[in-house]
Amino acid sequence: MKNVIVGQSGGPTAVINSSLLGVYKTAKDRGADVVYGMVHGIKGLLDRDIVDLSSQIKNDLDMDLLKRTPSSFLGSCRYKLPDLEGNEATYEEIFKILKEYEIYAFFYIGGNDSMDTIKKLSDYGEKIKSPIRFMGVPKTIDNDLAITDHTPGYGSAAKYIAATTKEIIRDGLVYDYPVVSIIEVMGRNAGWLTAATALSAGEDCEGVDMIFLPERVFDLDYFLEKVGDLYKQKRSVVIAVSEGVKVADGRYVCELADHVDYVDAFGHKQLAGTARFLAGKVAEKYGVKTRAIELSSLQRCAAHITSRIDVTEAFNAGGSAVMAAFEGMSGKVITLKRVSEDPYMCITEPADVHFIANVEKKVPDEWINKDGTNIEEPLVHYIRPLIQSEITPLWVDGLPRHLILQK
Amino acid sequence: MKNVIVGQSGGPTAVINSSLLGVYKTAKDRGADVVYGMVHGIKGLLDRDIVDLSSQIKNDLDMDLLKRTPSSFLGSCRYKLPDLEGNEATYEEIFKILKEYEIYAFFYIGGNDSMDTIKKLSDYGEKIKSPIRFMGVPKTIDNDLAITDHTPGYGSAAKYIAATTKEIIRDGLVYDYPVVSIIEVMGRNAGWLTAATALSAGEDCEGVDMIFLPERVFDLDYFLEKVGDLYKQKRSVVIAVSEGVKVADGRYVCELADHVDYVDAFGHKQLAGTARFLAGKVAEKYGVKTRAIELSSLQRCAAHITSRIDVTEAFNAGGSAVMAAFEGMSGKVITLKRVSEDPYMCITEPADVHFIANVEKKVPDEWINKDGTNIEEPLVHYIRPLIQSEITPLWVDGLPRHLILQK
Repeated sequence: MKNVIVGQSGGPTAVINSSLLGVYKTAKDRGADVVYGMVHGIKGLLDRDIVDLSSQIKNDLDMDLLKRTPSSFLGSCRYKLPDLEGNEATYEEIFKILKEYEIYAFFYIGGNDSMDTIKKLSDYGEKIKSPIRFMGVPKTIDNDLAITDHTPGYGSAAKYIAATTKEIIRDGLVYDYPVVSIIEVMGRNAGWLTAATALSAGEDCEGVDMIFLPERVFDLDYFLEKVGDLYKQKRSVVIAVSEGVKVADGRYVCELADHVDYVDAFGHKQLAGTARFLAGKVAEKYGVKTRAIELSSLQRCAAHITSRIDVTEAFNAGGSAVMAAFEGMSGKVITLKRVSEDPYMCITEPADVHFIANVEKKVPDEWINKDGTNIEEPLVHYIRPLIQSEITPLWVDGLPRHLILQK
Repeated sequence: MKNVIVGQSGGPTAVINSSLLGVYKTAKDRGADVVYGMVHGIKGLLDRDIVDLSSQIKNDLDMDLLKRTPSSFLGSCRYKLPDLEGNEATYEEIFKILKEYEIYAFFYIGGNDSMDTIKKLSDYGEKIKSPIRFMGVPKTIDNDLAITDHTPGYGSAAKYIAATTKEIIRDGLVYDYPVVSIIEVMGRNAGWLTAATALSAGEDCEGVDMIFLPERVFDLDYFLEKVGDLYKQKRSVVIAVSEGVKVADGRYVCELADHVDYVDAFGHKQLAGTARFLAGKVAEKYGVKTRAIELSSLQRCAAHITSRIDVTEAFNAGGSAVMAAFEGMSGKVITLKRVSEDPYMCITEPADVHFIANVEKKVPDEWINKDGTNIEEPLVHYIRPLIQSEITPLWVDGLPRHLILQK
């Protein structure tokens, strides 16, 4: 019996299901008997909430739909495995369930926390001399994973952000009076997504005027001064700002508002509101018309506009994880390695999961301009290949069709 | 000499340039010598900011790009023509300029205010026995124009909203804990756009759970009670709410917040914030995770996802205005007339502009359910044909290419 199991974890992306398909199809092609899916990640495994993926993905059309379905097909979780010490029971339970299902290899598609899960399970597996292989498949729109050149999910989010920014810029140019538009992009600690707004610039678009990443301290007075200069020069000013920008004392910009926004059920501060706060400040200071635009969840679930490069790499990352596991590897994560800049070529490479778990990759300082108001050209060159080519949605009755979990 | 002039006015849409192309191409095909464009509408005309469209639209590729370019290619304005009495000088100036350019017919693409412009100019023209023909081409994402079955621009916005809502619903289902998502849609007084979120429902999507339109009084307590019922029954609750919903005393819901949001340079209250306010109330009352998602300008400028029906009808409206003018009509607006429900068929028909100017068409009461928490099936049937089929963007270097005004 050669059964495998796969789960998805952390925040969804537009291509996380392409990685799922990569695991499923490659495992099947290489002789796996049953490919199981954990519903809601490791938490679903512990609850024995497990499906046979063959009952979900029944034909080629299902595969093409799965590839075009945003958000995690199997559901996700934010459950972080406890450290082994003092929690042996949890690990014993997981391995008991894996034995029950005769699992040969275990795949987990996710970000930092998910790679931590792979690390812990493979460490424990090694300790108890289990033959089960544990492999991580990277995924995150945030592009903040170490070692890998970039992460599956980032390219499509970047493409959506760049295309949308281009449309917002065009929209802002329409009137004959000045408008300052502020676009808020995801990214608590890393500015990769916000940087993607720079790709809007080209022969038919002047691009954004300023870009603020969380890697640099945000200076409100300097920001207002720069906006003041800009809106006197040009009719429409468009600025991109990361939701995670902070001022010198460590507070998030949105925390500077004189009213308290709510804290969610998990005690997380609700970060959205940075653009709104800044737009208010600009309107107050200059009496100019402003717009605050939050790209919100749309940037991670807009499967109607995905990068074919990203979809293919996401699939390949899943498939490579299976290949590596079937060749006997464990405790690895599949990374993407850019082997050529121009023409762009990228291969997968397994790496020790210990080097990726719990590390956050930020935008290098030299890719941000001196006064922190824009990014440098090499960063644009880094992102551009990742947004190339398209996957057309399968349109049914006017809307993109998705594949849904049948239970 | 048979010269014509065309302008665009009011808020932009994803297909307003298809109407521009309809005017341009049909006028050229019917022997117009020069097709002029007013830059920033009637205001540009008064400033003699006028371009020869042949110098902008040079070949078939330019035409196809123009069709895919969001926001008004010629720029827009919010300038409303003053009443004739006491302002004869403005009218004399306009007609003087039209004479200078040897204008035979005048086309204006816009919403309510723009149709008011056509009404005033054709009334004045009649008075002074001018031979110039004045024709209106309707456009607005809001779908709030009288007489016409629907307005060009609405179908594409509805398609974007429905597709995006579907993706947001999928995104919300991913976790194993309850989430209440509130989507805020444009529409100050009319709920047509918000109603389009209902189209997300289908074989692969459960749709939104509640829809609140500005046509009904919003009751905050009732809303919270209903949300409380819903989130106990299902993991992910998604609610669509119009930015224009008001409570019984006439205040906008977003005005109930205890902090004051800024008023823009024109004294307009900044309406955005309704979803955010409601999400805060839900989080406060139930301690549940919430998300506030504003579709903001994206819903009117997202040309990367347009309805082919809408693009075609927008083009036809422009073309029909030219046909009608060349047949001698003036003081008319082109309306869309649905001649068959199933299969959907729609034709254009000129109507007296006096019947459309300054009238606002709202969602009929019988298309909203009894307690005002959802819409009725006939409204879905009304919208569905308008979002059918697609226009694929022309992708260049990973992004949709647009045509821009060269000056």
